[in-house]
Amino acid sequence: MRIALDAMGGDGAPTSTVDGAWAYAARRPEAAAEIVLVGDESALREEVRRVGGGGDEFEILHASQVVDMQDSAVDALRSKPDSSVAAGVGAVRDGHADILVSVGHTGAAVAAATVGLRTLDGVRRPGLACLPEGDKGHFVLVDVGANVHPKPEHLLAYGIMGAEVSRILLDVAEPRVGLLNVGEEAGKGNALAKETHDLFATAPVQFIGNVEGTGLFRGAADVVVCEGFMGNVLLKTAEGLSSHLVDTFARLVAEHAPESTDAVMRALRDWSDVATYGGALLLGVNGAVIIGHGATDGRGVCSMLDQARRYVEGGVQDAITEGVAAAAEGV
Amino acid sequence: MRIALDAMGGDGAPTSTVDGAWAYAARRPEAAAEIVLVGDESALREEVRRVGGGGDEFEILHASQVVDMQDSAVDALRSKPDSSVAAGVGAVRDGHADILVSVGHTGAAVAAATVGLRTLDGVRRPGLACLPEGDKGHFVLVDVGANVHPKPEHLLAYGIMGAEVSRILLDVAEPRVGLLNVGEEAGKGNALAKETHDLFATAPVQFIGNVEGTGLFRGAADVVVCEGFMGNVLLKTAEGLSSHLVDTFARLVAEHAPESTDAVMRALRDWSDVATYGGALLLGVNGAVIIGHGATDGRGVCSMLDQARRYVEGGVQDAITEGVAAAAEGV
Repeated sequence: MRIALDAMGGDGAPTSTVDGAWAYAARRPEAAAEIVLVGDESALREEVRRVGGGGDEFEILHASQVVDMQDSAVDALRSKPDSSVAAGVGAVRDGHADILVSVGHTGAAVAAATVGLRTLDGVRRPGLACLPEGDKGHFVLVDVGANVHPKPEHLLAYGIMGAEVSRILLDVAEPRVGLLNVGEEAGKGNALAKETHDLFATAPVQFIGNVEGTGLFRGAADVVVCEGFMGNVLLKTAEGLSSHLVDTFARLVAEHAPESTDAVMRALRDWSDVATYGGALLLGVNGAVIIGHGATDGRGVCSMLDQARRYVEGGVQDAITEGVAAAAEGV
Repeated sequence: MRIALDAMGGDGAPTSTVDGAWAYAARRPEAAAEIVLVGDESALREEVRRVGGGGDEFEILHASQVVDMQDSAVDALRSKPDSSVAAGVGAVRDGHADILVSVGHTGAAVAAATVGLRTLDGVRRPGLACLPEGDKGHFVLVDVGANVHPKPEHLLAYGIMGAEVSRILLDVAEPRVGLLNVGEEAGKGNALAKETHDLFATAPVQFIGNVEGTGLFRGAADVVVCEGFMGNVLLKTAEGLSSHLVDTFARLVAEHAPESTDAVMRALRDWSDVATYGGALLLGVNGAVIIGHGATDGRGVCSMLDQARRYVEGGVQDAITEGVAAAAEGV
């Protein structure tokens, strides 16, 4: 099992990425051999020495270019053919790695993977799935921003693929798939929501109908499908609101129960580590890709590498390919 | 100043509504005379006696019908012409009341107000504005669900009207208006977002461009404009996530600092009373209407009545009418 890590992408790269790889490798004797660092070879060897290695602990796949956060996704693809993310996609395409992990430019990673790996038969546009935590554990929210002009059949594919993710990564035997909407009754919402609802009604998933925003973090469904514009705004709003509430809560504890501040803040930090579940999965391309926040630090990269290992060992990619194919035959 | 209260609408009505009116009236000697209860006269007199009154403390405007939560908005309008919400709209139209407060069927209230009061010159479709609390105090989020198929010019009007709300109700001298989008740069997002961004660029408001979800609760803008489908899902998601996080905090405190549980929970309750800022304002019709959650209890109704008084005394309705007219002339 080999994980290609786009070691040059991300706000803190290559420091954050090499920190993450080093922490991952420290866990098990064979773990270092599972990682392929992709990026500028001399810079990466130096980083590995900085964290305490000899420099050759990891295989390094040299790539001479880096996509900047300011680049447009399409320009980056064209003008930087030897970027670390493009080389990482190439490693997956050629079978040299089983999965790519990147915390660089999200749009560039989506574009490079879509062009380099091509979409699965039966999937027109890939979607990004994230796995936030709610009352009843983690759930799948898809699409969180890969596709801002989706058609109903794109959303249908996200539901089918999201169910495989839920089954394998979250151990949900029969994932309940819901459509995010402004009301629970069929016939609610805008034209996209109504058409998507009708498509899901005959799809080979356990479709439970519309779910409202209120239920999202309260366990209303195991897989929640929404269009990418809304999913992106929703996910970021949830992040901002969570920070706001954690800050508010910390202030209230400091004011009203100062003697408990340390214990409560420690518990809060431990909880928030669990509540954060790695990166977003790119669903619908011929190869496994996980994309994280640009701000992900070394601990976050390490947990994404763990997530990547579970993805590969669980056979998620094959399950998705088969799920999509089976659905296409059923229609 | 007179507030018409749709006393029959809402999950707990008429108990919740009369509780709210009674609490409002208890504050000041002249407050009872500011309330007009709209609904079944004998039922309402009985409720007033239940809470400790003689039965004639409030003016009662009789209406023989009630819109059920199961009714469709359009059917309710047609088949129940003497519903409490329709009669309340009539009271505003005829000048008998300055504002209508309802915690009943949102769609029916929007439809009754749109038909009964008509839209303002220059506004094609009304929008619903709510006032959630973030890091830097309350902000205006509009539209939260009145218009699920908006055009760019509808969203422009919401920004102009939302700025008047921010100025008067939230004391923001120069409200910064932002467009909710998937990225901060101009040119981001779907077609609606791009066109709306261009329209705002020349509008008579302090437009600060796109804001991302992350900034919503962190004070990125004083007025945040979004389309109604997303706004509705977003608002409900924020409610669900807040409950989830408050439950999580409570559990963490109980586990890790049990001796502080009472103090922290009390502080949390006081904070959440402040964080909840009344109902949603229906912007863009010829008359003032505030619509709350069906689950609003007596305390919530009382705070909506306070909000209604501030709305009327602050002259929000006239400011909106003038703001829209001025913008239309400028174009």
